[in-house]
Amino acid sequence: MSYKLYYWDGIPGRGEFVRLALEEGGADYVDAAREPGGTDEMLKLMKAPGGAAPPFAPPFLVDGDLLIAHVANILFYLGPRLGLAPEGEGLRTIANGLQLTITDFVAEIHDTHHPIGVSHYYESQKPEALRRAADFLSERLPKFLGYFERVLSQNSSGPNQMVGDRLSYVDLSLFQVIEGLRYAFPRAMDAYEANIPRLVDVHDAVRVRPRIYSYLASERRLAFNESCIFRHYPELDRQS
Amino acid sequence: MSYKLYYWDGIPGRGEFVRLALEEGGADYVDAAREPGGTDEMLKLMKAPGGAAPPFAPPFLVDGDLLIAHVANILFYLGPRLGLAPEGEGLRTIANGLQLTITDFVAEIHDTHHPIGVSHYYESQKPEALRRAADFLSERLPKFLGYFERVLSQNSSGPNQMVGDRLSYVDLSLFQVIEGLRYAFPRAMDAYEANIPRLVDVHDAVRVRPRIYSYLASERRLAFNESCIFRHYPELDRQS
Repeated sequence: MSYKLYYWDGIPGRGEFVRLALEEGGADYVDAAREPGGTDEMLKLMKAPGGAAPPFAPPFLVDGDLLIAHVANILFYLGPRLGLAPEGEGLRTIANGLQLTITDFVAEIHDTHHPIGVSHYYESQKPEALRRAADFLSERLPKFLGYFERVLSQNSSGPNQMVGDRLSYVDLSLFQVIEGLRYAFPRAMDAYEANIPRLVDVHDAVRVRPRIYSYLASERRLAFNESCIFRHYPELDRQS
Repeated sequence: MSYKLYYWDGIPGRGEFVRLALEEGGADYVDAAREPGGTDEMLKLMKAPGGAAPPFAPPFLVDGDLLIAHVANILFYLGPRLGLAPEGEGLRTIANGLQLTITDFVAEIHDTHHPIGVSHYYESQKPEALRRAADFLSERLPKFLGYFERVLSQNSSGPNQMVGDRLSYVDLSLFQVIEGLRYAFPRAMDAYEANIPRLVDVHDAVRVRPRIYSYLASERRLAFNESCIFRHYPELDRQS
């Protein structure tokens, strides 16, 4: 039986972290909200009474009777099933911790263009966004990316993957974060990437994995755009 | 061997979600950063080279050789060991999803007083905080609390707990969220709580559990204050 992924149609967003794992793992899955009538079906599932717990927000994954919400939770569940998690509870717990740091980073990336609230358009919170994005680029981006670089350099199995001795969903997610940051903040990333050579290597290695390479060239891969988490507003990028 | 919890001394903060589970579970644990020299030890662990993965930030838990970062990850690990998780992978996955929604909610609560960045004082981002807090109270607080209320009402095992048929760490965390919101936004909570009777019942039931009741009266329980996630700035609360 195939997995059903539900996420807002038209943007890569948080759904993309799940798609990359499903694609690399060769999973049988349906990108359900992109099917005809799929968005209505998604909204119905979110409002349905009954069920152990409705999701607060997309993405969520349906596997038989189980509905799983939150990217890190979905990936923790899928990881061992798709051969994308390390062996053993210890390393899996560490992978989950790393994924949750990615979750926090992604939320901060989102908030550069929405520092006041998601119920308002970017244009109505632009002065605040300019200030928040400047702080993000000077303080938070180096802190998070520097941290991930350090994790790679400290991995006792070598710097080719974030945890253990094989590719995991954490590496796939970091590929997507780098892609998104390059789209959103090209000048800042151009200036910063020399500081994170191992992370760039992991990104490059993920990009050319046969299944990922083929996925990226397919129409299943959605392009970044200004409705997504990663938005390119030149005024928020590094100036100079 | 006892668990070692590391979190910034002097504030309940995110560490409190872990403390409540350790206390209710009757765990043998040390609140390590509150011991003499403990904060230095914590900072050393965060900077130490080697180890499978250093934590990005406190709280983290040390159990023997394993260092576990992020509240939801720590609780997922501790839950079954302390009798505070539901039975079976399905319900545990649902509990984890609920805890991650709490994580997101807590981050939004924090950002009401720090909408621009953690590297700046509240006073230097007060205009933005006033706008963000107003949006939070009108849009986000009802959305999150209304969601948790709905989860309780839809639980097929009854509305006395968030998931399954027994107390879990999710209920303990929601107790703390309600406590924190009452501290930070007393006027807003006073006006809103009639909408969430089941959630208030869960809060009240947690508060009088013998181990929690005794913990809350002890000096191990830290008071809320204005260095914490939950801060009482009257100007950010509901006006009138």
